[in-house]
Amino acid sequence: MRQGTLTSDGYLLAEGPHLLEDAQRAGCEIAVILVGESAAKRMGVPTGSKVVTDKLMKELSATEATQGILALVRPPQHKLADMFQKNALTVILDGIQDPGNAGAILRAAEAFGSSGVVFLKGTVDAYNPKCIRASAGSMFRIPMTVGIDAAAIPAVTLYAASPRAAKTLDQVDLKLSCAFVIGSEGRGVSEDLLKRAVAVRIPTKGVESLNAAVAAGILLYEARRQRKAS
Amino acid sequence: MRQGTLTSDGYLLAEGPHLLEDAQRAGCEIAVILVGESAAKRMGVPTGSKVVTDKLMKELSATEATQGILALVRPPQHKLADMFQKNALTVILDGIQDPGNAGAILRAAEAFGSSGVVFLKGTVDAYNPKCIRASAGSMFRIPMTVGIDAAAIPAVTLYAASPRAAKTLDQVDLKLSCAFVIGSEGRGVSEDLLKRAVAVRIPTKGVESLNAAVAAGILLYEARRQRKAS
Repeated sequence: MRQGTLTSDGYLLAEGPHLLEDAQRAGCEIAVILVGESAAKRMGVPTGSKVVTDKLMKELSATEATQGILALVRPPQHKLADMFQKNALTVILDGIQDPGNAGAILRAAEAFGSSGVVFLKGTVDAYNPKCIRASAGSMFRIPMTVGIDAAAIPAVTLYAASPRAAKTLDQVDLKLSCAFVIGSEGRGVSEDLLKRAVAVRIPTKGVESLNAAVAAGILLYEARRQRKAS
Repeated sequence: MRQGTLTSDGYLLAEGPHLLEDAQRAGCEIAVILVGESAAKRMGVPTGSKVVTDKLMKELSATEATQGILALVRPPQHKLADMFQKNALTVILDGIQDPGNAGAILRAAEAFGSSGVVFLKGTVDAYNPKCIRASAGSMFRIPMTVGIDAAAIPAVTLYAASPRAAKTLDQVDLKLSCAFVIGSEGRGVSEDLLKRAVAVRIPTKGVESLNAAVAAGILLYEARRQRKAS
């Protein structure tokens, strides 16, 4: 079974020494570490790694400027139910297309103690190299699950950020278990989830909407602020 | 004088009908509107515009998928002092490299009533097409100024987000005039401004830092929250 850019047995390509270190620290299983010749001369050959030609390293790398080291890493596997445990603070990505936004949201989710991030069907591939990079390692530490049907989301209080909602963010009680639905950059939250969700407005003026990652970060910050104050 | 991707007389290339509409609504001076042949058939020829071949439109466009309309727009010109008026809430970009982040910050700055955004020297070009797109029109509505020396920043309370600061964001009084310094994605805030600034920490755990635009959005949201409550 191949999901997105994962290999058939669930490995993703992690590039660069920082990401590899993050994966190792998070206790991810690591299948292969490859180091380019020049990088090996510069920083030595890590235990268990294989040295390859710079040419091959360049071909394998998804970035323009390869850092000379990459690894096949198995991210932790989580079930949907894991994301909605007691006192949940879940993030549901409903069609986000920009991998940089998705990665920044994973990072904010970890930062504010989210119980997990759900990638619904139609959302950018979580294992897109740009998403992995933008998550800055959070992807290995925070529970996440991908390819989920909106219908499978359990009964939980859903909040959908909407620029036309009557209630503002500070008028809802975010101290109890809840999930934030983050809609796509162009179309917003899908009809089905919007029906089930309480619409909330981040109090802004002038703009039609905020960048999706900025909005998610503010929702999570506010939830954490309310929970800490209680 | 050519600044970044502005023309010598201060025009930038705005692509797509939405951005052009934003510029028109904001009262920007518009020198030329060009419409590709196919787009002209689809949506008509706007007043004062020139129809060009699709081939030329494709060559002029900075995006892969041109929307068939572009214009030379003169963004409003602002002075540095304008950003630090009474009850200022200024954003100072100190080395931000990602144009998507810079654009998302302009958008958040407008959304939370910032008095202006300063692009210091060494920061990404504000008129980079990706920054213009990511700002979703906020660039035409919020005061901004580019190519500024850090030494020129007036005496104002500066807050620099730093993951190792002693004070958290909710422990500082953001109701009075202040400016937020947003450092570069890799190196953070530069030494000179860090010396002048009060370091504040967004209360996070686990992560080394947040995405720069997410951090800026949260700082602005919190400032607006405190000012509204007072």
